[in-house]
This record gives sequence, C-alpha cells and structure tokens, in this order.
Amino acid sequence: MVMLNTENEYGIGIDIGGTKTLLALVEQNGTIKRQIQFETMPQQGAEVIIALIAENVEKLIASIPEGGKLKGIGICSAGVIDPQELSIVYANNLNWHNVKIGAILQERFEIPVLLGNDANLAAVAEYVWGTNKQAKHLIYVTVSTGIGSGIISDGQLIQGVSASAGEFGHITVDPRGERCGCGNVGCLENYCSGTALARLANERLAAPQQGAWTSKMLLEQASAGDVQAQELLKEAAFYLGNGIVTMIHLFNPTQIIFGGGVMSEDNLLYHYMLDVIKERALPDMLKHVSLSRTELGKEIAVLGAAGMFFMD
Amino acid sequence: MVMLNTENEYGIGIDIGGTKTLLALVEQNGTIKRQIQFETMPQQGAEVIIALIAENVEKLIASIPEGGKLKGIGICSAGVIDPQELSIVYANNLNWHNVKIGAILQERFEIPVLLGNDANLAAVAEYVWGTNKQAKHLIYVTVSTGIGSGIISDGQLIQGVSASAGEFGHITVDPRGERCGCGNVGCLENYCSGTALARLANERLAAPQQGAWTSKMLLEQASAGDVQAQELLKEAAFYLGNGIVTMIHLFNPTQIIFGGGVMSEDNLLYHYMLDVIKERALPDMLKHVSLSRTELGKEIAVLGAAGMFFMD
Repeated sequence: MVMLNTENEYGIGIDIGGTKTLLALVEQNGTIKRQIQFETMPQQGAEVIIALIAENVEKLIASIPEGGKLKGIGICSAGVIDPQELSIVYANNLNWHNVKIGAILQERFEIPVLLGNDANLAAVAEYVWGTNKQAKHLIYVTVSTGIGSGIISDGQLIQGVSASAGEFGHITVDPRGERCGCGNVGCLENYCSGTALARLANERLAAPQQGAWTSKMLLEQASAGDVQAQELLKEAAFYLGNGIVTMIHLFNPTQIIFGGGVMSEDNLLYHYMLDVIKERALPDMLKHVSLSRTELGKEIAVLGAAGMFFMD
Repeated sequence: MVMLNTENEYGIGIDIGGTKTLLALVEQNGTIKRQIQFETMPQQGAEVIIALIAENVEKLIASIPEGGKLKGIGICSAGVIDPQELSIVYANNLNWHNVKIGAILQERFEIPVLLGNDANLAAVAEYVWGTNKQAKHLIYVTVSTGIGSGIISDGQLIQGVSASAGEFGHITVDPRGERCGCGNVGCLENYCSGTALARLANERLAAPQQGAWTSKMLLEQASAGDVQAQELLKEAAFYLGNGIVTMIHLFNPTQIIFGGGVMSEDNLLYHYMLDVIKERALPDMLKHVSLSRTELGKEIAVLGAAGMFFMD
C-alpha cells in the first residue's frame, strides 16, 4: 500500500540567536524534516538578517512534500517581543529595536506568523511534542545564564498583557535579600542561575587550579563529593525549590519540566531541589505534579516556534 | 416605544456559606433582579439544604420576565470543589464530603451548572461586571481570615488540574520563616491575613482596654496615628507587597483588585502595600497594572457564580 501524505501538516520554526540562527521544517508529529543554520552577524543589521531568513524559509517551503500544508511560521527571540505587532521590541543580543520581522515575513509568504520568547516556546514544545503530550497544565523552567519559565494553563500559553508573563527569575525568594538589576529585591535569579552559581563559588570556595569557577565546574565538583560545593548547591536548591513551590500553589499544574544549561544533565542541584519541593508543597497539589528534566534537545526553541500552530 | 426584553439573558448565582446561603437572579448587565437568602443550618444535612436551594432556584426562575433566557446556574463554595464532577469534595464550614450538588441541580433543572470557589468567582465577577469590564488579564486578591486569589489570564480563569490554582495565601514570602499549617514554610497568610494581623497585635502591642485585638481594631488604631500599630501594618504590607510583585512578574496583568474584610475599607495597610509594589515591581510590567479595591459589594460571590455564563 502506498501512503499518500496529502494530510500532512507542517510548521516552520525560526530561532534567532545572537551567534546563530536556526530554521526548521517540522512535521505535525514533531519530526524535524529539514533544518538550516547560519551564523547571525548582528553587525549586518536587521534588513540583511531578515533577507537571509526569508531566503532559507523559501528553501524549507520548497522541501515540503507534495500535498503537504504549511500552517505557519513561528519565530523565537530573546528579549522583548510584541506578539500583536509581530515585532521584536528590543533584543539586546541582536541590537534590534522595533524590528517588525513577523509582519514582514507574513506579508512576504502570505501565511500566519507568530512570535514568542524562548521560555514560553519551550513550554509549547513540551506541550505539543514532549513526553507528556498535551498535559493541559504544564510549566517549563529554564535554569541557564538567567532563569525563566513558560506556563501553559488549560492548554493556553499564559503571556500576559505585554507577553512578559512567566518572569520566574524575578520573583522574590528573599524579601530582605539584595537588590537585583531589575529593581526588585531578592530575585530567584541571583540565587540559582548559572551566573549566580559561578559567582557564589568564586566568592566562597577556594580558587580552582586554573581560571575561575563556572557553574559546570561547580556541579561536577559537587558530584565528585566535594562537601563545600554540595553545601553551596543545597543553598541554591533551597531557593529554587521554594520558587517552584510558589509556582505549584499558584498554577496547580500536572507537569513541571526543567531545562537550560544548568539542568541539561542530571545533577545534585536538581535532586536537592526535588527534596525541597517534596518537603514543602501542599500535598493535595503535589500529588498531581510530575517533575522531570526535558528530553527535547537543542532544537526545543524551533520546535516550540513551529508548535504554536499545533496547540489545539 | 415599548422595549421588549426578549433578548435578555440571565444567570443564577448561589453562594453557600456556613451561616447563610444567598441566591440571586442576575441580568446580563450585572443587575441583580431578585435575591433570596436563607439561614444555612449544616446540621440539617446536605439533602435538606439542597432541597431548600432547589426550591429557591424555582422561585428565581419564576421571576424571569417572559422571553428572558436562563443561561445557567453557578455555585460558589468554600473548600475543595471538583468542577468536572460538579461536586463539593470537602467543605469544612458545611461538613460536606463529596456532595454532588451541581450534578443534582443540573439534572433537576436541565440547565448548565458550574462550580467555583469564592476567590476565583470574585475574579470572574470583576471580569464580567467590574469597573474595568473585560480586562483580559485580571487578578482578584482577597485578604480576610485567610488570603486567596482568583486569576484571569487572556479572559480565561486559571483553575489548574484540581481547581486549586491561585493559592496566593500559601506562597512562600519568607523561606526561613515559620512552618504553616499547610506544611509549607513562611506562607504569606501567616504574615498578613486578618487572623495574622490580630495575632501579631496581641503578641506585640499592649493589650487593648477590653478584650483582645482584632484586625479591624488594629487598622483603626493605625489610622488614628498609633505609631506601633502603623509599624506592625508596615511589616505585614511588606510581605503582602512582595507577594503581589511575584504575581505581577508571573502573570503580567492589567488589573489587580483587592477585596475581603481586611481590604473592605480604605486603610493604611493597603497604602503601605502599594508603596512596596511601586518600589519593587519591574517598571515594564508595573506600567500596565492598575491596582484598586473592589467596588462590588457583598454580592460579589453570587455575581461571579452567575458571571461564569457571561465570560465571552
């Protein structure tokens, strides 16, 4: 029997980073059919970069098998976006201000375009194509240079009025803590991001044999049995776990999935955090929650960008 | 010209409390056309109370003008509800366990029935009929014996998997604080609810001329210029304000509306809290938020219960 794929639907995801841009053609089952990557050179300016993106979108569209249907193009960007205007309001890593990339691509390809930020789209990727597909109440937490989250409640991405919802890195975990760069006090990000872990290690631990501590080195050192490194991770996990308890009590989710550089591999920070959550969260809410690390790889952002068209 | 009200739509709201039950027929513009109240006597048992409720629902239905259409019956209850099963899983004030009140009324009246808890339905009332109608991203915070919240994001009530979302009283505001009855540590409710205010006043202030401190007395004393009472409110407002900052950063709302006994009148606690929020919230999110006290009266719960049928 010959299977015709006349029913197949596709989405295109674009992840624009400061050093590279990744484009992917994603099939409705989550398979990446083709991906294209190019070096982003912000000094070339937005116009050149958008032309490069459009050129590669054309290549991806040309790769769609006959009878396949492209549902839309999703764009993932760091920084501040305006999902209504389909523009990137401000992206530090690209030095972009009010770049209407979504509107431009929508006009050019005459197809729906959507924008989202990285943590939100990672949540979409998990929701649409993760191991617990279509978990209606799902939170994705990224612990990396900074800390962020994407929140899906009852199958809807929570974006807020200016698409800034889910600023998990800037919830207060110590109301008498230090002032954060954002203006708030005692923000989670300053206690448990990769940046914070490295800073704390450099402040408190003996200098490493060469160079300075990184969060990766700290996690390895703790795994190797260094008690001081473990104590430092326990303290960071204490704040992160507390923040997650707040998320559980506010959103009553079924899934919380962790990703980002600091959570990319199994480590003690993750397990210490689980201990805090299990000790503190309301049992009636905790019993509904499954906690895990993401199994989607580095393509999570393009998967989420394309996934916006497959949320129903 | 004679206006025919053939287009008018109605909802019935029922607020079942431990001491009284209020039923209201609500017109689509938010006007309460008729209300009926009776004394709830939990010792009579669920069956008798449900029969009384049904009897009064019949009276309200009989009051609908000719050509008017009843969209549904909404029920507000304290305690744990199961919105899918249309049952009250557990209500302490009624001593009810697994009472399928919604299913019973739905079968009896052959009309859609929905259930919600009080803070969630207050948010619905504000969303549908408040001063900023149809603000798509709205949070209602109740500060009373306890602290709770109802959260609407993009026009959808956030309920979570077991309708327990919005447990704002049990987010951690002091991770090294005291253990709460819920199992978590440093919960907001223990720093700023009416119960907490009275307890703190009794612990720290000179005994009042007669009896013991209540939160109402404390608020009055502070307004009268008592510096010690003011200091105590500032401390409580510090934690409440911090909690609200967390809500702003997670939900990116346009409206936060305060209600409940402790916020029912303008007072210093409210203003101290506003100061904390303005000093700490991310400016890019704060600029979108309007903070106010509710202008809906004691019927807010029945309005919200009926309002569930007018959210679109």
